Amino acid sequence: MVPRCQVEVLYFAKSAEIAGIRSETISVPQEIKALQLWNEIETRHPGKDMNEVEEKSKDIIKFTPEKLSVDEASQLVISPLCGAISLFVGTTRNNFEGKKVISLEYEAYLPMAENEIRKICSDIRQKWPVKHIAVFHRLGLVPVTEASVIIAVSSAHRAASLEAVSYAIDALKARVPIWKKVRGCP
Amino acid sequence: MVPRCQVEVLYFAKSAEIAGIRSETISVPQEIKALQLWNEIETRHPGKDMNEVEEKSKDIIKFTPEKLSVDEASQLVISPLCGAISLFVGTTRNNFEGKKVISLEYEAYLPMAENEIRKICSDIRQKWPVKHIAVFHRLGLVPVTEASVIIAVSSAHRAASLEAVSYAIDALKARVPIWKKVRGCP
Repeated sequence: MVPRCQVEVLYFAKSAEIAGIRSETISVPQEIKALQLWNEIETRHPGKDMNEVEEKSKDIIKFTPEKLSVDEASQLVISPLCGAISLFVGTTRNNFEGKKVISLEYEAYLPMAENEIRKICSDIRQKWPVKHIAVFHRLGLVPVTEASVIIAVSSAHRAASLEAVSYAIDALKARVPIWKKVRGCP
Repeated sequence: MVPRCQVEVLYFAKSAEIAGIRSETISVPQEIKALQLWNEIETRHPGKDMNEVEEKSKDIIKFTPEKLSVDEASQLVISPLCGAISLFVGTTRNNFEGKKVISLEYEAYLPMAENEIRKICSDIRQKWPVKHIAVFHRLGLVPVTEASVIIAVSSAHRAASLEAVSYAIDALKARVPIWKKVRGCP
């Protein structure tokens, strides 16, 4: 039998919060690697992720007349717990119903629009285990090829964020009070 | 009746290619706006998009040991003909099968991997009307939260690129010879 020893494990900050205690004495093999010890500690607190440094899920909603950044949206939803980020970017096309388009102009009823997007985020969290959600919408003129909307969602596994993004853009188009005016050639 | 006049329309470069002629004389109302004239010209060449400055669809495939950029992938698939860009970003999670992860290490059999991704792009084009497809895969060590794979697809309408991205990442995981090694605590 492998010789064992007693070690005192001290918990600080977040780990103390998660474990619900500040210290405990456990029995482990005398020769043990850091990773094995970590797993040993984790199994003592089943259902709790000792590794969860960043627990709270965020809904980030932004309306702006400025250019939207895909990198910014993507960075905001990154989490060490997630293996997947799915994004949708809605851009201005150069044609609409057979007509040439120069730009689209967006207007929103802001308090209601933001509220409605919060509801969509909450619907998503009911349906899929996603981590962070970012929804950016540009207001005013959006020239051809530029983004009017960006949705980014992170999740541990890919199916959740892929389905959530698809749902989010459909729901946004259907429910959120944002109007678009097509601007063609003068 | 509105007075009409004859105007000579000259086609150059791409527009000449698309119209298949270098000039023609057409009859239009004496007072006509630029946009109306444009539509008039377009209806004379049905089935051809006179506006299509960028015709060729691109499949952009990249394997690299460098950090991947979501903005770069997104920029590469932008098209004035498209109203939608969908993206998937696969990132390194801090845990795998209950174990703590420091980084993932990716290795690919490059000629076959690239070939297989080209096939996936071609499958996508059979299934959905998408414009450009970009597939980036990082090789070597990928630390927690950094991207190992980015897929970006543009399309005129959103359903096509959303479904194509979802298909692409599933197909990539199933068919492309890329191996990953999990690196935990030392």
